Amino acid sequence: PRRAMSSGAAMDDLTYHQLSDDTIDRLMEYLDELGDRIALAGYDAVYSNGVVTLNLGVHGTYVINKQPPNKQLWLSSPLSGPKRYDYDAARQQWVYAHDGEALDELLRRELCQLLRTSIALDLRRTGPQ
Amino acid sequence: PRRAMSSGAAMDDLTYHQLSDDTIDRLMEYLDELGDRIALAGYDAVYSNGVVTLNLGVHGTYVINKQPPNKQLWLSSPLSGPKRYDYDAARQQWVYAHDGEALDELLRRELCQLLRTSIALDLRRTGPQ
Repeated sequence: PRRAMSSGAAMDDLTYHQLSDDTIDRLMEYLDELGDRIALAGYDAVYSNGVVTLNLGVHGTYVINKQPPNKQLWLSSPLSGPKRYDYDAARQQWVYAHDGEALDELLRRELCQLLRTSIALDLRRTGPQ
Repeated sequence: PRRAMSSGAAMDDLTYHQLSDDTIDRLMEYLDELGDRIALAGYDAVYSNGVVTLNLGVHGTYVINKQPPNKQLWLSSPLSGPKRYDYDAARQQWVYAHDGEALDELLRRELCQLLRTSIALDLRRTGPQ
């Protein structure tokens, strides 16, 4: 398996926290909207202390957490298990090195499959906020 | 890799939640004591919504979460990555099928290594509470 990025080792702590916090902010905003839109018993999206917990009731629990020593985001999916994401500066995305899929691509695919609703999640940093 | 238990499929939801909540209660009690005992910048142990987050500052973050559809506990370790634990009724322990190591054995080994202090964590259900 190839490595997604060679620049990962050079990223400093501040940049890591800015990029990961920005991604988590976008993710939480989307998950809050999603929870309002669908009516799923047990749906709960919580962010605390570097960890996003997305409880999907009977479908299980997603965990997405910061792992600062590795400058990664780690995912645990009830459908596909664990993955580790490195930031790809060119794509402005968190990418799983082994298959090149971005974090939001996986979430769009799996949440659509589990919840049977359209998922337009976009975690890229595009344009000014 | 062999399977740790054949009785897992037979466990009902109520038993799963009782056993996993009991384990998490014991774990959180220990982690609160540990935080008081050691002085580690960034140490934080939080339980919320089926997910234990153990932030060890520069050492990274452990996540231990319930995964009810699988009747498992899932671990994410900054040292050794992800593992999934099934309940072994004979040992009264959550066990990783691939090597037979219990969840508390892994945590004792790794926390001792990271924090350089003795770790006497015992997650077995022994005696009345």
